[in-house]
Amino acid sequence: MNYPGKIKKEYNKYTSYANRGMDLEELINQSNEYYLESDIAVIYKKPTPITISEVKYGTKERIITKAYFRTPSTLDYNGIYRGRYIDFDAKETLNKTSFPLQNIHEHQLLHIKRVIAHGGIAFLIIYMNGTFYYLDGNNIINFIDNNKRKSIPFEYIETNGYIIEQKIKPRLDYLKIIDKLYFKED
Amino acid sequence: MNYPGKIKKEYNKYTSYANRGMDLEELINQSNEYYLESDIAVIYKKPTPITISEVKYGTKERIITKAYFRTPSTLDYNGIYRGRYIDFDAKETLNKTSFPLQNIHEHQLLHIKRVIAHGGIAFLIIYMNGTFYYLDGNNIINFIDNNKRKSIPFEYIETNGYIIEQKIKPRLDYLKIIDKLYFKED
Repeated sequence: MNYPGKIKKEYNKYTSYANRGMDLEELINQSNEYYLESDIAVIYKKPTPITISEVKYGTKERIITKAYFRTPSTLDYNGIYRGRYIDFDAKETLNKTSFPLQNIHEHQLLHIKRVIAHGGIAFLIIYMNGTFYYLDGNNIINFIDNNKRKSIPFEYIETNGYIIEQKIKPRLDYLKIIDKLYFKED
Repeated sequence: MNYPGKIKKEYNKYTSYANRGMDLEELINQSNEYYLESDIAVIYKKPTPITISEVKYGTKERIITKAYFRTPSTLDYNGIYRGRYIDFDAKETLNKTSFPLQNIHEHQLLHIKRVIAHGGIAFLIIYMNGTFYYLDGNNIINFIDNNKRKSIPFEYIETNGYIIEQKIKPRLDYLKIIDKLYFKED
């Protein structure tokens, strides 16, 4: 589950990020801010899906006093780049040999299929073995359709994925991979 | 502000919807569900943006016990239709002569401009005088760039907007307007 609290806890274990102390979500948010400010792309993280159960009226504003986390049915980030619809999620694993598919909900897989079918670009950013990988939605669907395994072997990600360059700006230049894959640029 | 509680309260005043008792958000969500299930488009409402301040661990799940509403910087709905990036919001007013621009935040206007500049389709669904109108982002930007008025006159919406047909499925067939405007279909 993609719950902020839980994520933070896991991230704090890591020391191998090039940008120490910054978690994966923060790296992507900063990259998206850079893309936005530089007029390169318009990509946002969706808010955490919650069900609000109780709201109180404070002196200045309304305060949510009871709410529950919902399972997301889409991916966390979406937007537009070079006229194309972009939809992706960021995942990480401490597992060195394979990426557990339990990290992706079944309706998220369906969502990836739908986005691709309608002409969009869907992918995952996977942090694994100290490297950030771009794994295209087509590869994910292809793997799942042809395997009964509950995890994607690291070799599959290394072979079919693309290493995302880490820079100062943007922190993770994942759109460069999309240029290469979808716009035939080097 | 687009707060669920506040919206509900305003919606309950209305009796003129063809679908009595169903609020604007619900009409659009049902339309989007129909589009999704019929494999026509992949469009979702973004969750309400909140800042989570306190979380407790219940017996089965984590419960948010304190959170604040955030001002949204994008529009409420986005997705993909016929390969195009779609981004919109739904607004309503009881005002009969003009649509108050305070209904749209300044960064939402900037967002509309950016989406259009990057090749996406941005628009508003406006419920006013008992009718649902599609008003394209280009018209909104054009009006604001050429007027100092703090509201859009109803005549402008009637002249430049398009009436959205109400049906059983989908409840509000707003994609039909996009077919006409962006795909040159009748």
